[in-house]
Amino acid sequence: MPIIVQKYGGTSVGGTKRIRNVARRIVAAENDGNEVVAVVSAMGNSTDDLLKMAHEISADPPERELDMLLSTGERVSVALLAMAIHELGSTAISLSGNQAGIQTNTVHTKARITGIETRRLIEELESGKIVLVAGFQGVSPEEDVTTLGRGGSDTTAVALAAALAARECEIYTDVDGVYSADPRIVPGARKLDEISYGEMLEMAATGAAVLMLRSVEYAQKYGVPLHVRSSFSDKPGTWVRKEDEDMEKAVVSAVTHKTDESKLTLLRVPDRPGVAATVFGALAEQNVNVDMIIQNVSEQGTTDISFTVNQPDLPAAQKALDAISGDMGVAYLIGEQMGKVSIIGAGMKSYPGVAAKMFRTLADAGINIEMISTSSIKVSCVIERAKVEQAVKVLHAAFNLGQTG
Amino acid sequence: MPIIVQKYGGTSVGGTKRIRNVARRIVAAENDGNEVVAVVSAMGNSTDDLLKMAHEISADPPERELDMLLSTGERVSVALLAMAIHELGSTAISLSGNQAGIQTNTVHTKARITGIETRRLIEELESGKIVLVAGFQGVSPEEDVTTLGRGGSDTTAVALAAALAARECEIYTDVDGVYSADPRIVPGARKLDEISYGEMLEMAATGAAVLMLRSVEYAQKYGVPLHVRSSFSDKPGTWVRKEDEDMEKAVVSAVTHKTDESKLTLLRVPDRPGVAATVFGALAEQNVNVDMIIQNVSEQGTTDISFTVNQPDLPAAQKALDAISGDMGVAYLIGEQMGKVSIIGAGMKSYPGVAAKMFRTLADAGINIEMISTSSIKVSCVIERAKVEQAVKVLHAAFNLGQTG
Repeated sequence: MPIIVQKYGGTSVGGTKRIRNVARRIVAAENDGNEVVAVVSAMGNSTDDLLKMAHEISADPPERELDMLLSTGERVSVALLAMAIHELGSTAISLSGNQAGIQTNTVHTKARITGIETRRLIEELESGKIVLVAGFQGVSPEEDVTTLGRGGSDTTAVALAAALAARECEIYTDVDGVYSADPRIVPGARKLDEISYGEMLEMAATGAAVLMLRSVEYAQKYGVPLHVRSSFSDKPGTWVRKEDEDMEKAVVSAVTHKTDESKLTLLRVPDRPGVAATVFGALAEQNVNVDMIIQNVSEQGTTDISFTVNQPDLPAAQKALDAISGDMGVAYLIGEQMGKVSIIGAGMKSYPGVAAKMFRTLADAGINIEMISTSSIKVSCVIERAKVEQAVKVLHAAFNLGQTG
Repeated sequence: MPIIVQKYGGTSVGGTKRIRNVARRIVAAENDGNEVVAVVSAMGNSTDDLLKMAHEISADPPERELDMLLSTGERVSVALLAMAIHELGSTAISLSGNQAGIQTNTVHTKARITGIETRRLIEELESGKIVLVAGFQGVSPEEDVTTLGRGGSDTTAVALAAALAARECEIYTDVDGVYSADPRIVPGARKLDEISYGEMLEMAATGAAVLMLRSVEYAQKYGVPLHVRSSFSDKPGTWVRKEDEDMEKAVVSAVTHKTDESKLTLLRVPDRPGVAATVFGALAEQNVNVDMIIQNVSEQGTTDISFTVNQPDLPAAQKALDAISGDMGVAYLIGEQMGKVSIIGAGMKSYPGVAAKMFRTLADAGINIEMISTSSIKVSCVIERAKVEQAVKVLHAAFNLGQTG
């Protein structure tokens, strides 16, 4: 029998009624002749509730203990879901990340999966059970519980699908699929039928929250077809798969955006080797994730370096820069209220002029571009945060991405 | 350094403020020069909240899944407590039952501890850490999570104290210790400074809720001194330990009571071998816990058998009796609204007349005795439920157990 892996997010299991609904869906997949493994997130806001208690106790709780705490939410979900499936007359067994053989490194709160020991998973499937796996968690070589970071249940599901050679991995969520833009901003946004891993990666990296970046990387690496769909309807969602001949290559598939960017500019940095290494080394030491980096053309032996960070990382970034800017004799500017808008499309490679059209569209709307970065299938512009929504709307219209598109 | 094991109940950790309070107490014990292992229950009513969700989904959830569900509460407590200890500048590590090496049999929801693999516990203690263990849970030979039943955290604590040869096991709870009667019924009830394991066992068996029966059995078997005390004060509580020369042997130490008894009487049962085996075998098959059993003197070849069960077990008991009473040609009576009052004292053995004084006291108060059972250190009487409070009061006064006692 083919194996399918399903993943249900926190909203899909937010309450006992919804858990019963998910149980029906899983049993239906079993009745369709599949062996089913379902990965489940914590119920609704339960992870946030746990985090709140942790922060009442400590501003900076030990990460090992955070993992012990946060991993309980998914265990609650899988246990309740097993009961709901039992009520429907099928047999399910819930497994913790550890029991499911999900081995990780020791980087608590953002561990990486290092391997999957499938022995028990296969035994339980072969004995005719539906297997429910607590998402977002694994076990370290020290036998401690680890978690995979926000959105980690997606990664759990994709990793299990790869390890079990599943036919597909269904990602059930609270939206119908991947959209051409955030429908809260663009009511006419179109649900995409399929996109390539590469496009989905760029979308996740530039602000689409529907899938976690790492899970898409994992799917791409192991060639696991993803089906992103709603747990509240039976409509097909969006397939994320390998780009091939059959796949329609839209010049632009989607507009994405982020609103939590901050921009830092180092002024008149000496233009000599090793400067960038010093700057970004100092930022890495403070665990600051740098997004976009632009170095302007050199002028009289100095250069300006601009980069963006997530707004929550801004204090750490300033701390890093303050420590080194004195030695280097440079000052820096902060642009706090920044955002980013991006267009993504696998067909962009073959069409020159896409970036130019984007810049023209923004200019016509009176939106100033502060920074630009491009890849073969993406163009991103850093703009004023207050203009982000407008930018998404005008780009979506200009590239004709709407329902009629 | 001496090892002490502490156990904190759900009320003691009911909220982040109380968790911080428990953390201070644990760190104080460490500062006093002890290696500390603390066993923690789930916060406040969190176990009941989980059970409620389970029963919204299923009237009869699979017990393996109940254990997966219910074991999460203690994990939350130990993780938060580790954070609180970290905030105080000490180092603690939280361990699940599995990580703490608590091995059990496979009887889900009421598993028994079969052994403790102390390797990790000792490693963590030797590395200078306070060790926090999730109470109430262990791991089965199938590598599944098991729970030990209500009050199981006490058993966890005593078992760890035995396995680690701890100097003592402190049971922190929301009362000051073990009382001569329930202070809610007898305001003048006296806190006992010390009692023997035997007395505590009889008290637990006859209604004192402060300690779980099985944990006292375990403590007696391994000679672990227990100190039952309040987590909200620094006053010494009640020591439960081996009866020896030094221990004061009160004729009567305490009055205990239960109000959830039901009495069943089988009428005119043929007085021949095997009848009792049939009756109580049928009850055992329905998992009915029978408390007191009385068989009256035989009369013309038949006898009456009366016994008590916990009221919640009554439907199952009736089912068992209905199945066999036809074959045996006997009828049965039900006394639903029953209770039980008991007096316990290690000194009773050497003083005849204690039981007689109890019966006289109840008679003088107009309380009819329906059944009597005795052990060397206990006399129990089954009485009408509505009279239980009055019985406790008059017995407490008659045996002079109050503060001035």
